Amino acid sequence: MGNFKGHALPGTFFYIMGIWWATKSIMKYAFKKHKRTSYLGSKALLHRIEILEGTVLFGMAVIGMLGEQFNPGGPFLTLYDYKKGHWVQLLGWHHFTMYFFFGLVGVTNILCSTIRSLPASLAKIMFSNAFFVETFIFYNHTHGREMLDVYVHELLVLVTFLTGLVAFTEIFVRTNIAVELLRSSFVLLQGSWFWQIGFVLYPLSGGPAWDSVDHDNIMFLTVCFCWHYVLAIIIIGAIYAFVTWLVKSRFKRFFSSEVGLLKNAEREQESEEEM
Amino acid sequence: MGNFKGHALPGTFFYIMGIWWATKSIMKYAFKKHKRTSYLGSKALLHRIEILEGTVLFGMAVIGMLGEQFNPGGPFLTLYDYKKGHWVQLLGWHHFTMYFFFGLVGVTNILCSTIRSLPASLAKIMFSNAFFVETFIFYNHTHGREMLDVYVHELLVLVTFLTGLVAFTEIFVRTNIAVELLRSSFVLLQGSWFWQIGFVLYPLSGGPAWDSVDHDNIMFLTVCFCWHYVLAIIIIGAIYAFVTWLVKSRFKRFFSSEVGLLKNAEREQESEEEM
Amino acid sequence: MGNFKGHALPGTFFYIMGIWWATKSIMKYAFKKHKRTSYLGSKALLHRIEILEGTVLFGMAVIGMLGEQFNPGGPFLTLYDYKKGHWVQLLGWHHFTMYFFFGLVGVTNILCSTIRSLPASLAKIMFSNAFFVETFIFYNHTHGREMLDVYVHELLVLVTFLTGLVAFTEIFVRTNIAVELLRSSFVLLQGSWFWQIGFVLYPLSGGPAWDSVDHDNIMFLTVCFCWHYVLAIIIIGAIYAFVTWLVKSRFKRFFSSEVGLLKNAEREQESEEEM
Amino acid sequence: MGNFKGHALPGTFFYIMGIWWATKSIMKYAFKKHKRTSYLGSKALLHRIEILEGTVLFGMAVIGMLGEQFNPGGPFLTLYDYKKGHWVQLLGWHHFTMYFFFGLVGVTNILCSTIRSLPASLAKIMFSNAFFVETFIFYNHTHGREMLDVYVHELLVLVTFLTGLVAFTEIFVRTNIAVELLRSSFVLLQGSWFWQIGFVLYPLSGGPAWDSVDHDNIMFLTVCFCWHYVLAIIIIGAIYAFVTWLVKSRFKRFFSSEVGLLKNAEREQESEEEM
Repeated sequence: MGNFKGHALPGTFFYIMGIWWATKSIMKYAFKKHKRTSYLGSKALLHRIEILEGTVLFGMAVIGMLGEQFNPGGPFLTLYDYKKGHWVQLLGWHHFTMYFFFGLVGVTNILCSTIRSLPASLAKIMFSNAFFVETFIFYNHTHGREMLDVYVHELLVLVTFLTGLVAFTEIFVRTNIAVELLRSSFVLLQGSWFWQIGFVLYPLSGGPAWDSVDHDNIMFLTVCFCWHYVLAIIIIGAIYAFVTWLVKSRFKRFFSSEVGLLKNAEREQESEEEM
Repeated sequence: MGNFKGHALPGTFFYIMGIWWATKSIMKYAFKKHKRTSYLGSKALLHRIEILEGTVLFGMAVIGMLGEQFNPGGPFLTLYDYKKGHWVQLLGWHHFTMYFFFGLVGVTNILCSTIRSLPASLAKIMFSNAFFVETFIFYNHTHGREMLDVYVHELLVLVTFLTGLVAFTEIFVRTNIAVELLRSSFVLLQGSWFWQIGFVLYPLSGGPAWDSVDHDNIMFLTVCFCWHYVLAIIIIGAIYAFVTWLVKSRFKRFFSSEVGLLKNAEREQESEEEM
Repeated sequence: MGNFKGHALPGTFFYIMGIWWATKSIMKYAFKKHKRTSYLGSKALLHRIEILEGTVLFGMAVIGMLGEQFNPGGPFLTLYDYKKGHWVQLLGWHHFTMYFFFGLVGVTNILCSTIRSLPASLAKIMFSNAFFVETFIFYNHTHGREMLDVYVHELLVLVTFLTGLVAFTEIFVRTNIAVELLRSSFVLLQGSWFWQIGFVLYPLSGGPAWDSVDHDNIMFLTVCFCWHYVLAIIIIGAIYAFVTWLVKSRFKRFFSSEVGLLKNAEREQESEEEM
Repeated sequence: MGNFKGHALPGTFFYIMGIWWATKSIMKYAFKKHKRTSYLGSKALLHRIEILEGTVLFGMAVIGMLGEQFNPGGPFLTLYDYKKGHWVQLLGWHHFTMYFFFGLVGVTNILCSTIRSLPASLAKIMFSNAFFVETFIFYNHTHGREMLDVYVHELLVLVTFLTGLVAFTEIFVRTNIAVELLRSSFVLLQGSWFWQIGFVLYPLSGGPAWDSVDHDNIMFLTVCFCWHYVLAIIIIGAIYAFVTWLVKSRFKRFFSSEVGLLKNAEREQESEEEM
């Protein structure tokens, strides 16, 4: 990860997954309001989507793992150099382990969707585990680095911890659209923050990194982190508007009579009270 | 914010909102006991109140944002001074960002009350988010300041964190008057604590600030913080007594027969068991 | 508090209350199993007990407050000495404030039991508040003291925080005997720990306090704290055995026929499944 | 504990209990799906298993307590050496106390299974208490040791704290297989981590311990901890597969007709929806 690309890659992965999870949650919510009327809200499709999601996650994790191991300067699967008597590229192994746990999430997703006897909450636990492991590793990752470097990683630790925490609470509460969107917003925040770290530590212009002992930079990154979160909120808002509009307009084609529209209105009311 | 007025303004805002939220919770609770008999407890009115509340919150946030940007010595929307090569008034941007998130709460309140398909818990999440963001920013706000200054802001961080935490738990539990009043009491505490900070750091007499390295001052502010909380509890108690008396006396005018009073008594008992 | 008596007094108060709360919880649990058959389990009695409990708590708090203010060397209600320009006996004011919040708990208990419209969870919130305020004050209480002194107070902070936390969770969960006993065990632990602090810092023999920089003392106090907790568990176990035996033997007198005993057995089974 | 065996013993104990708890949870889950058809899922057997479990736990704790007290160099039940005026082997007493609390868990398990009037959640509370006490003692255990020694114990503190936390949440939620497996995985992690600590601090080869100030060792142990967790997950996965296969194949012998198999399939679906 010790370059711009190494931060842009996980950033992009998290952004894609964040957008996908937000879309999935909103679609489920929108379809639940218009229930029994569509193939898209059916259980069979959901299972297929879960399997696809798991496969994509697993693929991303494998790309990440291979990238960390076999990039020039990576550990190439060697853990200890017995000749020189020191560990080989432990930071690379750190990143490898993080990707590995996200790969496990993908595998669990696939297993929970194919083997019916497996409890669904297992996938949720693995999900929050992956984020907690990421938190744990990043927390012990920045020893001996400079203030600015440590600080941007601390913010990463903060957001991964919060993601894990929210995912963990989801095991105990019933499906709650607001909590799911909160989790997605944290994933988006993490994604764009990875990009920000890349820009700060390895500027694209090839110029020097930001002054790592100037406290003003830390003051700025504090608000910058919040603005990244605003961006995540805006993106989720846009997805919400778009998906809701899509589901509604799609339904209009089916129920082009006034009766259908009235029914929808009734259902909306019902499902809202249900929440 | 670097003067007395900059602390009195948010203090006043929080105090007004704290009193309002306590009043709203108690009114809802009192009307729930006498249900179906009044327009004031109806859903239509509640929606209008929510919209009004959102508008007021939004207005306060805009005033705060403008004040932080365009007061003499503010950043005037400039983030980076390329000539001199340093950030412009980052503390002002910090405050601006906090106000911005409270503005978002106002907007979400309005949206959740007008667009019926939006889940109500979204407004609660934005609410707790705003307090957590405030916690986060204040936590990274006082670098390099003196002990007393840091301490009064740490107490602020404590109370905003607790407010956010209580607001977050409200997403998961059913409406609970006691938890709502707890949250309101924290908001009141924050409001009066802002005033206290103003008095400590920028004494109105124009005299010097308190001795910032005398540990006795910190010892005093510790108990002072608790006394502010006692004040918040007393104010909420007074609001409770007043609102309950108001609702009861208002009902007497409608049901001036003994039958009505008996009915009320029955209802009270029922709704209490319901809690 | 700066002597042995100042620690023995709150220690005794907490021990009495801890034993009482454990007894109350176990009695409620035992009577619930044999329901509808006894005056002792009736709502009317419970209300009277709550009022009595509130009065006792309030009385203890008043004794504590007066003791802190008017003992020789106390602040005598003076907060600031304008002549000498320094605060008066802030540690005394700290203790005063803690007692004050426990007094508030007593007042809330009485109010919640007499005014029926008040929600019962309000008393629980004030209860957890009192412990959190105690945690907050003790946390900011030991500035500039020696290692051993700080450590014994840190353990106090730990146990008051846990008590507050458990009391706070009780707002959200249904009555749960195990959680109530956990809370009572923490209160007992706090009570006996106050005595331990007294013995450590102000030995009764009049000899010198323990060596406050010897780390072995801290190592010992760590296990000693656990043994205090074992003591609390044993005491609660004894109370449980005694109360259960008392309730059972008391019932035998009423239902001296085999039918009654069989009925009891049935009820036991029912109520256990209910839990 | 100050040698390899002192760490291998608790490590083995925790590993055995972790495997057993995982097996028990999965068996309960598997039998619940095929309910009313087997003696193995009956309440009577469960009670006996609980008593056996409690006895084994108690036995392990007694072995540990005796080992800590009466190994050469142990305290031999002496707490304070009045002649030399210092505490005797406080680290041994630390370990003794931890074992003692696990012994209490065993006793509570036995009591809750034999005395029917005792609430079942009491055993759960004692369970989480034992882990919290372990956390507390290990947290105050490593004063003045070297960086590596402190770090491996910090990771132990982390995992015992998480175990206690998950066990504590189990008091409030309904039986949830995923949470139970999470707890078991933490117990397994703790078990294998004890072995790892033994290998790190007291290498079997008799050679010197790892370089305790080389930060690379800490970097490695960070990922190593995660790999131990992966191992725990794999073991639980294997147990899950084996137990599920066992329960299914066992049922085939009973229901060798197609009707039985169909019924099973139906039940599986039902119980899954139930979750």
